[in-house]
Amino acid sequence: MRLESFAEAAGSAELVVNATGGEGSMDALTQAGEANLAGKVLLDVSNPLDFSQGFPPSLLVKDTDSLAEQIQRAFPAVRVVKSLNTMTAALMVDPGGVGGGDHSVFVSGDDPEAKRTVTSLLEQLGHRDVIDLGDLSTARGAEMYVPLWLRMMGALGTPMFNIKVVR
Amino acid sequence: MRLESFAEAAGSAELVVNATGGEGSMDALTQAGEANLAGKVLLDVSNPLDFSQGFPPSLLVKDTDSLAEQIQRAFPAVRVVKSLNTMTAALMVDPGGVGGGDHSVFVSGDDPEAKRTVTSLLEQLGHRDVIDLGDLSTARGAEMYVPLWLRMMGALGTPMFNIKVVR
Repeated sequence: MRLESFAEAAGSAELVVNATGGEGSMDALTQAGEANLAGKVLLDVSNPLDFSQGFPPSLLVKDTDSLAEQIQRAFPAVRVVKSLNTMTAALMVDPGGVGGGDHSVFVSGDDPEAKRTVTSLLEQLGHRDVIDLGDLSTARGAEMYVPLWLRMMGALGTPMFNIKVVR
Repeated sequence: MRLESFAEAAGSAELVVNATGGEGSMDALTQAGEANLAGKVLLDVSNPLDFSQGFPPSLLVKDTDSLAEQIQRAFPAVRVVKSLNTMTAALMVDPGGVGGGDHSVFVSGDDPEAKRTVTSLLEQLGHRDVIDLGDLSTARGAEMYVPLWLRMMGALGTPMFNIKVVR
């Protein structure tokens, strides 16, 4: 995508998805343009992975902050909702790819209406168990889960899995 | 438990469980005595939670190290296996408490025989899906999952849940 088209795409969209790598998210959103993003729902599926020391990666931000919160602070007029970062891309858009879709997905965000918009999108994609973790700070949990996901991928030999919250 | 009895209990045990709070684990194991622990399997179910700033807690160690690895380095003759730290205590010993026991548990450790011993114990307790994540460094993933677990507990209003790895 040419740099100009980030801004064009963001400007005409109703909902913007940040599916960039975590280390490049801030740059990409800056290029998209704060004015083009203002007021829109930003579905943030990125993970702040640091591959500079090899595999498994460490996290660029964690525990007392999250990439989702950094994005929200940098773009206060955007309505950031963290979701889908806890599974491989194929399952984001086709949860039926494993277990007949009988697994869970999380949403975190400060704007209830934005979370409803994202939840509706997730349900349209086939997600049946959408768990609202709370405000955007709960994205710290969803982002810090990814190191476990990476070890599971290593143990299972495939990224085609997801967790179901059994209760 | 009197301080003396930590050492007495460790000395006569075949398998030792570290179920202390993460901030006190190293002290408790030091009191148990390196000589009493040497050669034994240490099932480490602790989590390095820092409640000094309130709830939710942050982590005392994370990402590029773990409490399990700190314990292993401090007690090199002990065979540390991380497991069960990803669920509430009631489900550790009675996984049938939710979902008919249809959920998952992880093991991490450097000693294959020690992991088999723990896996056998887990199966005796009713755990049916024991996932071997690999060496003890994979405990970083299991420990960093706990912040998500804490947010789920908040969202669900109960600690009586666990994750099933659907694949």
